[in-house]
Amino acid sequence: MQHGLLFSLDGLDGTGKSTQCRLLAEWLRSQGHSVTPCKDPGGTQAGDVIRSLLLDHRGDLNVACEALLFMASRAQLVAEVIKPALAAGNMVVCDRFVLANVVYQGHAGGLDPAWLWQWGRFSSDGLEPDLTIVLDLPAEMARQRKGGPTDRMERRDHEFHERVRAGFLAEAARQPDAIRVIDANASVDAVQERIRQEVSRVLAANLGA
Amino acid sequence: MQHGLLFSLDGLDGTGKSTQCRLLAEWLRSQGHSVTPCKDPGGTQAGDVIRSLLLDHRGDLNVACEALLFMASRAQLVAEVIKPALAAGNMVVCDRFVLANVVYQGHAGGLDPAWLWQWGRFSSDGLEPDLTIVLDLPAEMARQRKGGPTDRMERRDHEFHERVRAGFLAEAARQPDAIRVIDANASVDAVQERIRQEVSRVLAANLGA
Repeated sequence: MQHGLLFSLDGLDGTGKSTQCRLLAEWLRSQGHSVTPCKDPGGTQAGDVIRSLLLDHRGDLNVACEALLFMASRAQLVAEVIKPALAAGNMVVCDRFVLANVVYQGHAGGLDPAWLWQWGRFSSDGLEPDLTIVLDLPAEMARQRKGGPTDRMERRDHEFHERVRAGFLAEAARQPDAIRVIDANASVDAVQERIRQEVSRVLAANLGA
Repeated sequence: MQHGLLFSLDGLDGTGKSTQCRLLAEWLRSQGHSVTPCKDPGGTQAGDVIRSLLLDHRGDLNVACEALLFMASRAQLVAEVIKPALAAGNMVVCDRFVLANVVYQGHAGGLDPAWLWQWGRFSSDGLEPDLTIVLDLPAEMARQRKGGPTDRMERRDHEFHERVRAGFLAEAARQPDAIRVIDANASVDAVQERIRQEVSRVLAANLGA
């Protein structure tokens, strides 16, 4: 059986990440693939506890604690869900992955991005996405699109989100093959079409499809 | 104001660690010091959630997830409790610290002890105990002393606990000044007396007491 591939979507909240993950999973299924969708952090019993701690904790979580909680959740997700799914030949569509830590706790949060990549590789047991797609929007536009009630992460200030955006762009510039930036200031369908183009390229290269 | 000192007690469950921490704190207070007792993992709002996840989670926590959760809890404990206490001149008596991760998830759990030391230094923001005391007992004796209901950590097999004990002894052998081993197969008072001797030596060296 052919080994599956790992696709990760990332970007600021409000860029349409969750919708695009769902549409990508549907499309991959329509192409005959088995798909395992997942969300980082979360996706396991332990991960859900960690996720709620990260998103809802009202206290002032130290940035190192925050980064390490994300890493812990991912270690469990990779071991329990992602690696078995890939081994079974599934396509895994993951809402965020290591890059989010590098950007949120590193570029924007003040920790060393190189360290975060290093722990990230540990947390994923060496697994890296076959492709990461960053949905890009100016921070203010992403915030307006998001609307609704905000969680702890989302209440942070505008400047923080601008650093997040710049972090995503900087990491993509450093790894242009591994991380593709797609302009999310377009219709849902148009963005999904661009995602499919990128994913198709990776599928063709890996599966000879 | 003089900066405080950090004393950590470690060892297998059943070696009398918690009792000895309490007695050491009482003695330090009787010597005129302000004392901040703490427990790693735990000791903060986030840390208590993490602690209960670690101790009570019935699923099969991946060892990397486990190690990272300990690190996350410690990062919060150090930032929120230990560093402020030390800065205020307090003596901090901590039930476990980085060494426990090195031993439980490293020597016994299969992760690289050198990596765990490295993350440990990150999780503690570079802070290291002024003295770590390991209470030593053969694994079987510690288990029998412990008795009572067992949590997830304690249900592990005998061989695992023998590796834990050997790990503590190996790390103490590598860092004989920083980590002192005390034979816990003696009365509570006799063990406490030995602990006080070791702590007095460090107090004298640091405070000129």
